[in-house]
Amino acid sequence: MYIDEPLKKYLDETASGSSTPGGGSVAALAGALGAALTSMVCNFTVGKKKYADVEADVEKILSEVEDIRSELLDLMVKDTQVYGQVTDAYKMPKDTPEEKASRTAAIQEALKMAMQAPLEAAICCHKVLKLNIPLLEKGNQNLISDVGVAVLLAEAAMRAAVMNVEINLSYIKDKELVDKTREMLRPLLDEASKIRVEVYKEVNNAIGAELS
Amino acid sequence: MYIDEPLKKYLDETASGSSTPGGGSVAALAGALGAALTSMVCNFTVGKKKYADVEADVEKILSEVEDIRSELLDLMVKDTQVYGQVTDAYKMPKDTPEEKASRTAAIQEALKMAMQAPLEAAICCHKVLKLNIPLLEKGNQNLISDVGVAVLLAEAAMRAAVMNVEINLSYIKDKELVDKTREMLRPLLDEASKIRVEVYKEVNNAIGAELS
Repeated sequence: MYIDEPLKKYLDETASGSSTPGGGSVAALAGALGAALTSMVCNFTVGKKKYADVEADVEKILSEVEDIRSELLDLMVKDTQVYGQVTDAYKMPKDTPEEKASRTAAIQEALKMAMQAPLEAAICCHKVLKLNIPLLEKGNQNLISDVGVAVLLAEAAMRAAVMNVEINLSYIKDKELVDKTREMLRPLLDEASKIRVEVYKEVNNAIGAELS
Repeated sequence: MYIDEPLKKYLDETASGSSTPGGGSVAALAGALGAALTSMVCNFTVGKKKYADVEADVEKILSEVEDIRSELLDLMVKDTQVYGQVTDAYKMPKDTPEEKASRTAAIQEALKMAMQAPLEAAICCHKVLKLNIPLLEKGNQNLISDVGVAVLLAEAAMRAAVMNVEINLSYIKDKELVDKTREMLRPLLDEASKIRVEVYKEVNNAIGAELS
């Protein structure tokens, strides 16, 4: 679904009054776009005499980022599939104590499910950001602005994905899971900000930009 | 081209060792994704009793952002079409003074052409950002995180587009054009940063996020 369908269809269905695709799915796609640009930089480096010394390193980055790109595209679809389980759970009957208990359990289960796709997307975007750092030096210098675009998009996509994790976290009662998830994400977000600031500055310096 | 073709094809061709699509085109697409989410928020607001008071305002936003989305998709394609004119111009002969002069003129013309698509994309993304501000209050509050994702993506896309303007500006000799372009973009970029910071904070507060 979506992956092999026209680009326009995905955008039109996002824009429409149907719930899917929504922000979580779009965040994963934006991350995949960042990953695709990272691959492009690698593909313009590997096989070039000038970059022979770093070829093995860049090949490794390419292989890793291609796996992440594929994962992000899957998450773009997965996010649209789990949507609806939370709202379905909220519609369950709640007339008897037993019904109330089943409903609460179903809601909690659905929230944990709904959190997974954006959580995995955020982790993927963080990996894309990390993989771009060595490309500033090792990547084909003619494509340095593409490193910049990849980082800008991956950082925004990561924050967008985390926002979609947080929506679910605020309703999840399992405090240990909530705390553990936030403790895991916090340093990744901090690092993402630092990478964005640093790479943006370096790329703008390299291209002689006066606007930044 | 691209718009009616499979989503996967656009991503695969970006990732590949061919020059197009590149960062400029991807920036326009990321902006279109932000515009699509903005439209979704409007479509979930218009026609709802709860939001009847703001319906006319939100309908206006929807109409504007749909035009911008369509423009950004066109720019996604246009950016790939003008690419190559610059490199073609650099390949022109430069053995005689006449050839040198023709080549220089052709390069300058090609750079100005190549700057147009990302410049227009940057302006479109800025408009998407502005249109999201009233949606924080007037949009369906269940979709407030989608306002957040739209703004994160549009701001990153705008910066990415400006980076692709700057690549050309650094080689353009028409100082008046260079200065005029930068003077026009500077306040838009400043405003974009402010909108991102403000909207991100407000959305995170609204969803009870502890990570930001």
